[in-house]
Amino acid sequence: MTTDPDATPDEPLPFFRSRWVDVPESIVDVADRGLPLGFRAAGVHAGIKPSGNHDVALLTCDAPDAVSAARFTRSGTAAPPVLVTRETSRLEALRTVVVTSGNANAGTGRDGFAVARQVRSAAAEATGVDEDRVAVAATGVIGVPLPMDVVPRGIAAAAGVLAADGDDDFRQGIETTDLFPKTATVRVALSGGEVTLYAVAKGAGMIQPSFATMLCFIATDAALDPRTADLLLGVTVKRSFDRITVDGQLSTSDTAVLIASGASGVRVVPESEDEQRFGLALDALLRQLALLIVADGEGARRIGRVVVKGPDGPACERVARQIGNSPLVKTALYGGDPNWGRIVQAVGAVLPGPRLTPVGVRIAGVEVCRDGQEVVFDRPALEVLVQGREVDYEVTLGSATDDAGRPAQFANETEVYFSDLGHEYVTLNAEYTT
Amino acid sequence: MTTDPDATPDEPLPFFRSRWVDVPESIVDVADRGLPLGFRAAGVHAGIKPSGNHDVALLTCDAPDAVSAARFTRSGTAAPPVLVTRETSRLEALRTVVVTSGNANAGTGRDGFAVARQVRSAAAEATGVDEDRVAVAATGVIGVPLPMDVVPRGIAAAAGVLAADGDDDFRQGIETTDLFPKTATVRVALSGGEVTLYAVAKGAGMIQPSFATMLCFIATDAALDPRTADLLLGVTVKRSFDRITVDGQLSTSDTAVLIASGASGVRVVPESEDEQRFGLALDALLRQLALLIVADGEGARRIGRVVVKGPDGPACERVARQIGNSPLVKTALYGGDPNWGRIVQAVGAVLPGPRLTPVGVRIAGVEVCRDGQEVVFDRPALEVLVQGREVDYEVTLGSATDDAGRPAQFANETEVYFSDLGHEYVTLNAEYTT
Repeated sequence: MTTDPDATPDEPLPFFRSRWVDVPESIVDVADRGLPLGFRAAGVHAGIKPSGNHDVALLTCDAPDAVSAARFTRSGTAAPPVLVTRETSRLEALRTVVVTSGNANAGTGRDGFAVARQVRSAAAEATGVDEDRVAVAATGVIGVPLPMDVVPRGIAAAAGVLAADGDDDFRQGIETTDLFPKTATVRVALSGGEVTLYAVAKGAGMIQPSFATMLCFIATDAALDPRTADLLLGVTVKRSFDRITVDGQLSTSDTAVLIASGASGVRVVPESEDEQRFGLALDALLRQLALLIVADGEGARRIGRVVVKGPDGPACERVARQIGNSPLVKTALYGGDPNWGRIVQAVGAVLPGPRLTPVGVRIAGVEVCRDGQEVVFDRPALEVLVQGREVDYEVTLGSATDDAGRPAQFANETEVYFSDLGHEYVTLNAEYTT
Repeated sequence: MTTDPDATPDEPLPFFRSRWVDVPESIVDVADRGLPLGFRAAGVHAGIKPSGNHDVALLTCDAPDAVSAARFTRSGTAAPPVLVTRETSRLEALRTVVVTSGNANAGTGRDGFAVARQVRSAAAEATGVDEDRVAVAATGVIGVPLPMDVVPRGIAAAAGVLAADGDDDFRQGIETTDLFPKTATVRVALSGGEVTLYAVAKGAGMIQPSFATMLCFIATDAALDPRTADLLLGVTVKRSFDRITVDGQLSTSDTAVLIASGASGVRVVPESEDEQRFGLALDALLRQLALLIVADGEGARRIGRVVVKGPDGPACERVARQIGNSPLVKTALYGGDPNWGRIVQAVGAVLPGPRLTPVGVRIAGVEVCRDGQEVVFDRPALEVLVQGREVDYEVTLGSATDDAGRPAQFANETEVYFSDLGHEYVTLNAEYTT
């Protein structure tokens, strides 16, 4: 029912394809693959996925003094791989990541913990690192025991083919039903020379019909302090994967790991300009990956960004989440319908009365509602604007003008990126069974 | 893709059709229509709805000492009719309800307030009651001014045809895209004689493609104290309309009004057995109406009830809402898929770690997960059970057994009723425009 003027299916899209990502000057080159110095990777078919696709993946850093950082799902029913890694691995000194795909080893109770530990041991032995320097991740169906008759053999087989150009196999080994690859390797210019920064992500929302999982692994040959690694990963994850929603559902298995080999010999000094350059590059990389996840999610036709401004930061956050997760707003995005009433409704739901908030709404830059009341706008023109692949929403919580009649300034601002809600979502999630 | 063994489309369904509603012994008769003594109603086409259907409705109580109670949406962007009624009408002494349908007079700012007051004035004059004894309600598209060139004339016309058998016209005048009527009139046996209790509800969720609104009007010829009316309406709304969700979206316009004429001469004495009898009847009536709203919502195929038990009341509430609003759970319900992993995921999302909750899950009475781990169950048999029109979920938050190995007892329990999420929802909300 809609046309997509942005779609150019015949030519490959550049990695940085969203207008919402600023590519910093520190990124001097972008490639669609390539591991940094000091890393090897592999992916093999062990026997989890009926499709025969890769389902065990290994990424390992050869530098004994590798530095790392990690972030995990906040779920209170987190999966055993998350718990084993978070609670018992040295998150600042990880060297190996082992991933099983097609089975999340989640909802598997006490046995699942023992299995996650066995997977970690097998990966430690196969890659020659200490157990507590291994991160375990998994994605796929839940409630089904991980088939330990095939997984350890798969880990050993993957270790046997670890290679400096194994990143493509690794990517395939962490994917489930992703429609396209989500990975890039960028060169970042620092004062001491260039470093390589690689990241790969999989999944999101409904594209795994049985369960939702986001995984992201980042490798660099820059030399980072553990604190710098943790700081940069924390900030950039907050600005990327923490800002997206497909359906408001929190996975049991979300995992992001950054490992720095230092093999380039170029050091990122804390609080230096280099730290900023590197941070901006990592930021752009993770933001674009996050947007690719939203775009892939359950066959999304369009993605939206909502920016919410107001006097109260937590209120802005609640409103942005409510809008990004509102099935009313998401179906309107899918249908190419600039329906601002649904935005106002979502605001009211999370800012309960009796005091009324004078809401302002802009869609694709066009002011449609001011102080809670429709303003005159060119509806046919706006209906064309919302047919693009990326639609902007801006919501202000408070009077449009201050007491002196000047445009109001707001102390707080937040953003959320979200996919639409269409028939593909229902089909994937209702008509497939686990 | 599924069959519905409960469907019997050829014979009319009884009003009390849900296994989740207990019909109390105090209800001695159930009819599909009929106003109590002391009430007249009407509905006419004034010119709001392009379809030509009724779009202005009046309900009035002829007793000068009528007693009432009301409940409204908690939205912080509540519509002008809600605000005018809530802030400036005597909620304990309402005698007239005026409803416009097809236009919610919402998102209409300051002008909308003036219009809501004009509507109230017109209804007061037309029914011969004081302005502050009139409740105004509206449902339909938002952001569009109410057409005041036709509404006052419609109110006058409706007043001219007010009748003791006008309830059917009244019902049509409050409906938007409801697929079937939601109304009943019951006779309740009290110690002093029988009284009549009538209720009508409209809408829910997405059945109005542009906006969601729930309205319910209740009339009785019993004599109630204002406090009793308020207490009973408050408790029964909490157990009915407050427990349902179609899509987790809060309307700007939800309104429930109860008016008691006292015309039967039978008085409900506070804290008497009669109060309990009357309350149970009102409770059954509103619960069944609420379930009809869920069942009507956006062409739902199935409805679910989730009962959550645990040590912490607010946690039970959060979990029940999260499950009832989870698109993963709702699409599984639509697909007839007993996918318990999605339940566990929803629990984890609102009970964030690091402490894990040992979750238990029963679907249609079958235990599928105990202490966070799958238990052996007959999957083909369960797949048949979840094909019915009403599917039960039970979730426990805590170990299945206490320290002595006995089945655990939980201090708190809550329930939420929810519709599924299917293609009809997407079609209604994406492909219709405002």
